[in-house]
Amino acid sequence: MAPMLMAELSRRSGVPVATVKYYLREGLLPPGVTTSATRAEYGPSHLRRLGLIRALLEIGEMPLAAIRKILAVTDNEAVSVHEMLGLVQYELGPHPAVPPDGDPDWQAATREVNELIASLGWIVEPAAPARTLLAVTLAALHRTASAPPGPGLRAYAEAMAGLAAAEVASLDAVPPPRTPSGEGSRVALAESAVVGMVLYERVIVALRRLAQEDASARYFG
Amino acid sequence: MAPMLMAELSRRSGVPVATVKYYLREGLLPPGVTTSATRAEYGPSHLRRLGLIRALLEIGEMPLAAIRKILAVTDNEAVSVHEMLGLVQYELGPHPAVPPDGDPDWQAATREVNELIASLGWIVEPAAPARTLLAVTLAALHRTASAPPGPGLRAYAEAMAGLAAAEVASLDAVPPPRTPSGEGSRVALAESAVVGMVLYERVIVALRRLAQEDASARYFG
Repeated sequence: MAPMLMAELSRRSGVPVATVKYYLREGLLPPGVTTSATRAEYGPSHLRRLGLIRALLEIGEMPLAAIRKILAVTDNEAVSVHEMLGLVQYELGPHPAVPPDGDPDWQAATREVNELIASLGWIVEPAAPARTLLAVTLAALHRTASAPPGPGLRAYAEAMAGLAAAEVASLDAVPPPRTPSGEGSRVALAESAVVGMVLYERVIVALRRLAQEDASARYFG
Repeated sequence: MAPMLMAELSRRSGVPVATVKYYLREGLLPPGVTTSATRAEYGPSHLRRLGLIRALLEIGEMPLAAIRKILAVTDNEAVSVHEMLGLVQYELGPHPAVPPDGDPDWQAATREVNELIASLGWIVEPAAPARTLLAVTLAALHRTASAPPGPGLRAYAEAMAGLAAAEVASLDAVPPPRTPSGEGSRVALAESAVVGMVLYERVIVALRRLAQEDASARYFG
């Protein structure tokens, strides 16, 4: 890929020139290579970075402040890919309010989450927000008289574990970046992992809804 | 379950008295049985209805106007359970903006969604918003240079189909409502189906994030 001027970077990324300039000013996008007082050239790493910002903004629905934090750790080679993925995931909404400690439904749901994770042998930080998200949802399921029993938590957990393992393994297939700047492959891997985490979650939700419409058509239609 | 007064209905549902009164005024909750000028008694169907409203509001993150529409079809025995589930699902966000028709990424993604659904033999309305949600996400995946290949759409689709079939089948286990009012079991089934659709989607997202943290810990940790 030949170096690009601003107009081409904007066209290829689908990000308006004014927005690209804003990202440059705010340090979300590294500066290009200056070739004259008014010209700078941009490369594939700029295009990848703009794609990452768009994915987090448009699909991840993250505020720019959260994206700034994520880009800082993506670029920081001292942060491991695993730590970085955790930081990104922890920024993903929703962030439901935690019920008061004395709530018995909440206590039972928290215990259920801890027992499930332990019985599966999963390695998950005690402070992972997805624990809270799951417990809040289980508390709502228990509280709601009309909630159907469903196929059981383990069925969901095992389906998700299979997909997560396949997703993480697919990162091996990410081609090393071909940038003249010699940028580390750690940044490219980090970018891919972040994009995959955010976009495939949306793929799962959309396919789940489509599968449900089909199941409903067969059962009730 | 003995009939309840307002205070007990509020306590058991976790919905403040002022909010219960608002739902009554707005017709979201049917009136209780009046026993004197200032007293009315409420039963299990009121408790179930409040649970449904809370689930749609707190977990489905739906605006009250959408919930009102959903409750109207839940109560309308002329609408089939399948149609009702469609109407509920179509209210669930996010509702991403559709790119302009000429966008080639969008055209390719739409084709890919149509081909996937056809190859799986799924019965899905042409206007289902989940088609758009999936196509917008696939377009973002194709556009984003650093997107990892992932395990392929079919792997996600098959996992979701297995869960959806088990969820729908679990509705058979919903006990018939024991209400002295002789309320139809169609309403109870409809309420269960709506609660399950909204709450288990959140269960899936939370478990996916937990599974991903574990996969990342094993692979990169």
